[in-house]
Amino acid sequence: MKVLLVYAHPEPRSLNGSLKDFSVERLESAGHVVQVSDLYAMKWKASLDANDSIERSDNARFDPSADSKHAFESGLQSEDIAREQQKLLWADAVILQFPLWWFSMPAILKGWVERVFAYGFAYGVGEHSDTRWGDRYGDGTLAGKRAMLLVTAGGWESHYGSRGINGPIDDILFPIHHGILYYPGFDVLPPFVIYRTSRMDETRYADTCEALANRLDSLWTTTPIRFRPQNAGAYEIPALTLRADIAPEQSGFAAHIG
Amino acid sequence: MKVLLVYAHPEPRSLNGSLKDFSVERLESAGHVVQVSDLYAMKWKASLDANDSIERSDNARFDPSADSKHAFESGLQSEDIAREQQKLLWADAVILQFPLWWFSMPAILKGWVERVFAYGFAYGVGEHSDTRWGDRYGDGTLAGKRAMLLVTAGGWESHYGSRGINGPIDDILFPIHHGILYYPGFDVLPPFVIYRTSRMDETRYADTCEALANRLDSLWTTTPIRFRPQNAGAYEIPALTLRADIAPEQSGFAAHIG
Repeated sequence: MKVLLVYAHPEPRSLNGSLKDFSVERLESAGHVVQVSDLYAMKWKASLDANDSIERSDNARFDPSADSKHAFESGLQSEDIAREQQKLLWADAVILQFPLWWFSMPAILKGWVERVFAYGFAYGVGEHSDTRWGDRYGDGTLAGKRAMLLVTAGGWESHYGSRGINGPIDDILFPIHHGILYYPGFDVLPPFVIYRTSRMDETRYADTCEALANRLDSLWTTTPIRFRPQNAGAYEIPALTLRADIAPEQSGFAAHIG
Repeated sequence: MKVLLVYAHPEPRSLNGSLKDFSVERLESAGHVVQVSDLYAMKWKASLDANDSIERSDNARFDPSADSKHAFESGLQSEDIAREQQKLLWADAVILQFPLWWFSMPAILKGWVERVFAYGFAYGVGEHSDTRWGDRYGDGTLAGKRAMLLVTAGGWESHYGSRGINGPIDDILFPIHHGILYYPGFDVLPPFVIYRTSRMDETRYADTCEALANRLDSLWTTTPIRFRPQNAGAYEIPALTLRADIAPEQSGFAAHIG
């Protein structure tokens, strides 16, 4: 199988750097083909702006969605964007690896999403009307592929528990899992999260690698998070609220998991 | 009063650009002093990296937290970071204005947080031990100041409702409200969110400005979101979980609001 690892840490000689190298070796030794987008090493341009299209007139008003649509449809996207889209189309599975900074992904990775997930590629796909709200949340360009987060956090696991002060890790990651990965069609696997990274010694590192190896070995068999597909009848359209008879007692993020 | 508006949209001739200008005029005409950090216009460097410290040896291993701490303590932060910290210290209130892209802030603004919210400034403040977990979540450098998000979203309000497909807007914004703003001490006001931005006409724009004006006029009197302070007894330390007798039936983000 083909795996794209999108990696966002500025220091190769870090825990993240070691885990990235470990993951690549593990996947390759199992016979998979791996490409790595090492965003810091690539000096990835983080900020979405008018320069993301080529051959653009300087004075035109920049509309992030409309410009993205035009550039995607017309082959006028900047080359770095098109190259990452090709990697996504190539891959059977995508891993996003990053340290949790301020309870989300690093800016450089957020900017990868914003620029690569173009209109017509990751959003604005399929019919948009008052009865059909596009191919998204289960459908979309990346349907049939798998995605998983590999995340490091400085805090303790209890700080991210159901009553932990930071909020539950599943809720913190929901906007990424559901809003970024499930949205364009990925099957999203449970995340692999490493806590309390400042207290890593050799024993714990070995245990972490073993647990990570298990997750990489089962990348094709792990059951994805059961997000509810938008277009299978569970949602009213165009309000896009859960139908009254679906999980009537539930609300919030958890209601979107079947 | 003094207001810092941190603004993240690439096109001045946009809804966001107009609302930014409107906000500045409204605040100034009420006698407040306003500074704007227009991140795109400033060509803000989004990606946190080793170049954020000056006089750094090229071969040293880069540790985001340790390097940030050393640079902050030693006056070796890059000048753009120090300047934004001064603006934050100057301000009585801070507004973060941005379009919601992929259910979070644009990368350029996330990178502003990552770089400006240095160790010793916004985190790593106060005693850290197994009985005292720092000055954060209610305490911290920015305590006594107010913060508010001004957010635009393309989707409908119902899509962000309690059973809306995107998840409730308060939960989507919780990692920013609680994890980025309350963390270093801000009192966080309810957000001002504008939905379905592609359907903005003159009447709706006038109504939106009127509602925004009310929020700006009441910036000093609006009741903040009642997040629970970390250091007032509600949390077990060091587990940092809510004490069993506090809102025993609650879990998730909502449990951290009193």
